[in-house]
Amino acid sequence: MEWKPDKSLQVPVYIQISDYFETRILNGEYPSGSSLPSERALAALLDVNRSTIISAYDQLNSLGIVKRVKGFGTVVTLQKNEEGNVKRVPNWEEYVKGGMRHLNDPITRQIHKIVGTDKPYLNFAIGELSPDLFPVKLMQEAHSQLELSQYLGYEHIQGNLRLRETISEHLRQYRHIPSTASSVLVTSGAQQALQLIIQCLLQPGDAIAIEDPSYCYSLPIFHSAGLRTYRLPVERNGIDPEQIVSLYKQHRIKMVFVNPIFHNPTGTTLSYERRKRLLEISTKYGIAIVEDDPYSLTSYDHDTRSTLKSMDQDGSVLYVSSLSKIVSSGLRIGWITGPQSVIQRLTDAKQQLDFGHSNIPQWIASQLLSSGELDNHLTKLRTGLLSKLELTVNALRAELGDEVRFQAPLGGIHLWCELPGEWDELKLFNLAIDNGVVFTPGSTLGSSSRRVRLTYSKVDDLLIPQGIRKFAEAFRSLNSATANKPR
Amino acid sequence: MEWKPDKSLQVPVYIQISDYFETRILNGEYPSGSSLPSERALAALLDVNRSTIISAYDQLNSLGIVKRVKGFGTVVTLQKNEEGNVKRVPNWEEYVKGGMRHLNDPITRQIHKIVGTDKPYLNFAIGELSPDLFPVKLMQEAHSQLELSQYLGYEHIQGNLRLRETISEHLRQYRHIPSTASSVLVTSGAQQALQLIIQCLLQPGDAIAIEDPSYCYSLPIFHSAGLRTYRLPVERNGIDPEQIVSLYKQHRIKMVFVNPIFHNPTGTTLSYERRKRLLEISTKYGIAIVEDDPYSLTSYDHDTRSTLKSMDQDGSVLYVSSLSKIVSSGLRIGWITGPQSVIQRLTDAKQQLDFGHSNIPQWIASQLLSSGELDNHLTKLRTGLLSKLELTVNALRAELGDEVRFQAPLGGIHLWCELPGEWDELKLFNLAIDNGVVFTPGSTLGSSSRRVRLTYSKVDDLLIPQGIRKFAEAFRSLNSATANKPR
Ligand SMILES: Cc1ncc(COP(=O)(O)O)c(C=O)c1O
Ligand SMILES: Cc1ncc(COP(=O)(O)O)c(C=O)c1O
Repeated sequence: MEWKPDKSLQVPVYIQISDYFETRILNGEYPSGSSLPSERALAALLDVNRSTIISAYDQLNSLGIVKRVKGFGTVVTLQKNEEGNVKRVPNWEEYVKGGMRHLNDPITRQIHKIVGTDKPYLNFAIGELSPDLFPVKLMQEAHSQLELSQYLGYEHIQGNLRLRETISEHLRQYRHIPSTASSVLVTSGAQQALQLIIQCLLQPGDAIAIEDPSYCYSLPIFHSAGLRTYRLPVERNGIDPEQIVSLYKQHRIKMVFVNPIFHNPTGTTLSYERRKRLLEISTKYGIAIVEDDPYSLTSYDHDTRSTLKSMDQDGSVLYVSSLSKIVSSGLRIGWITGPQSVIQRLTDAKQQLDFGHSNIPQWIASQLLSSGELDNHLTKLRTGLLSKLELTVNALRAELGDEVRFQAPLGGIHLWCELPGEWDELKLFNLAIDNGVVFTPGSTLGSSSRRVRLTYSKVDDLLIPQGIRKFAEAFRSLNSATANKPR
Repeated sequence: MEWKPDKSLQVPVYIQISDYFETRILNGEYPSGSSLPSERALAALLDVNRSTIISAYDQLNSLGIVKRVKGFGTVVTLQKNEEGNVKRVPNWEEYVKGGMRHLNDPITRQIHKIVGTDKPYLNFAIGELSPDLFPVKLMQEAHSQLELSQYLGYEHIQGNLRLRETISEHLRQYRHIPSTASSVLVTSGAQQALQLIIQCLLQPGDAIAIEDPSYCYSLPIFHSAGLRTYRLPVERNGIDPEQIVSLYKQHRIKMVFVNPIFHNPTGTTLSYERRKRLLEISTKYGIAIVEDDPYSLTSYDHDTRSTLKSMDQDGSVLYVSSLSKIVSSGLRIGWITGPQSVIQRLTDAKQQLDFGHSNIPQWIASQLLSSGELDNHLTKLRTGLLSKLELTVNALRAELGDEVRFQAPLGGIHLWCELPGEWDELKLFNLAIDNGVVFTPGSTLGSSSRRVRLTYSKVDDLLIPQGIRKFAEAFRSLNSATANKPR
């Protein structure tokens, strides 16, 4: 081989090598099926490290023109088309593997696959309401009142003005949060609000704190963004704010994500004292707080729990909520309220992401929230959720007795359960699926202990006992399978 | 000062220094209003470079506890609360500046501010239809046929199954593209499809090629993602595919973004020969193609122009389109079709971004597309757009004579104009706004020559002559202002 890489060039040596072979392969000098020199031989020949050759071959591999076959070395895989020209269609598998955004974990992907399909699972995994809990009448009324001779062009990117005014009034009335239409951004659920915050207010390498366990772990959005995440264990009264101080001192955390009321998955509520202390710490160290509050209007005891934002004197809190858990998750109406400068920054990003929210769901949400019928619906909803919780708890006790441990929540839609013994989470998940039941394994929510989240809001009352029975069967068969295993 | 940074530690020295002062400031040793040592003095004292001190002070500044005041050095700005404790609310301005996602440029931001508001601008900047071109009757019918007793939970994240089937049938019938429901992903407009492709199939440092000028330049989404973008000049017949070869050889571009039919902003269509050649090059070098096609159904001459995807034998093209330019942009219904593995990857990301599209607009879109009335609407739409184009062209000729140059397009909604002489783009933009007219300056679309894009689809027929007159007035007053300027 006469050619040698030129180490004085700016182009990295492994790229030079990969370019060299790419050209030769495209020219037909190495036909499909032939082998490239062995890594060791080529390294000696070109007078470079073997690792450089490996990088070069990896590069050719990712271009889709060679395959690295164990025991055979590096084999050319380029195809020719009918006219005899070399042909290399885009290597989609490589594109798919390469993207910056991380994939959901396999279990979450499996759970999502059945979202919105007609598969007859008893679904204790998804956080949405059962058909009888949706305010169908209210939705129909709101829907039938729309004229649709309205303007059908792009909506205001920050959200339809009337909807923002309605949300602002709703925040005042139901959550004691002062806001104005211009400090509200309409988002595609709380989900998109979290995503926008991450993309607009943080940068790779920044440190943040999130609850452990937490809904946040079910999302790779933090790690896709290159953030360092630190854990705040959730206790009976929620997180311990003092831990934020030490995280700050050690890691300079810039933001804390909390779901303080009827926390997903534990169902706990951050105590009043802790909420106060959290705000103090935030304004002592200048740490921003994101309050994710999808559940505060679902309290079974009618006690109001004040949102952090309603106690926030200094504007340290970004408040995120949505209609998903109280009206309809399919509408995809959520919002965020916070300082003007933040709302404007996020609005600009939303333009880039999706050019604003769809118009019709916004008009419907606005009708619905201002109809004066929300109170009646919420009362019905709370009663309905509580009865589903009781059915779930009773069924669990009947099936698993004291083996299963949990703290029944006072609101929300999730029951966080501890099951005894050593067991394999994935096995339980698959056995339950085989039995027609889906639940959320604890690890998906960042929990390292053996826990399961049973979300009781979606399953029909009549089917809850059956669902829990099937779940318990899966658990028991798992235990007996383990017990029968030869040691 | 007894303390010195420890250079043997992992923590960077500037962080050690900033931490040191932060603690002292929080302890009250440097009260609000006091100055920190000068950069020079401190550098000498601690035996480090002055640039290290600058980094440390910048860090304190970004924490919001000092301000760097010209001529005064670095001043502590920490406030105390009523109880006399130090108080530092999150420094939102710093958060807002810090995010990874880039901001839109100032002109684009100004244009978006008036989207969806009632401001009485004659809007030649936004790519949407005028009220008389929307299929209002069709929308009303589709709307009134909805039951809304349907399932109101999360939709399938890939998109409502019936809508995907309808889109697949539409693609076959109207665009000669074979697809199946499982190879279609419903997105929030073409916009979100582009965003998903970037986030899931590319990584920072990757090279891509985009048309020059192009809609893509109005979006910072490519640069936010850290991509290197290379330009493909758009000629009368579209881009020259051979340039892709040389870009590939030089920069290893991984993906080409094109809008081949009735291109935004030039209105040109990639010739049949060039389309064929583009596909050949794609499958010779393994370069993926993204075909963004919002306009192909708007041809004024009823000639069909085949989409790239309809000619794509090897699956090298990801095809993106939407209902924005033919039905209603406010619905936010777009889609992408391509290889299964890509669609699945993008679906997973869409779950993370917004948990799927809102349900009601999907049901409406599906009714509308399958109603059998689309043809009639499209015929009306084309006639309407052509008449708007003629009104615009006539008004331009009447106002600016041969001074303005353009190539009238055979479809689409944009007129790309060249205005003579040397003139200041931003001044023209602002003068036009003062005159009640908005247009898109060429630089927003990546053009370096003095061009303007006049989008004629939204303005009422009766107001087009007036709008163009006001635009021409702005242009003339700009010239006379320049002419009057003392030299
Ligand atoms: C704590 C929490 N945040 C956010 C979300 C996302 O909800 P949505 O995007 O539907 O508003 C959920 C849904 O389960 C949740 O439990
Ligand atoms: C070429 C092109 N692509 C994409 C878009 C985005 O359109 P939407 O997201 O509304 O489908 C536009 C809108 O102007 C466009 O012209």
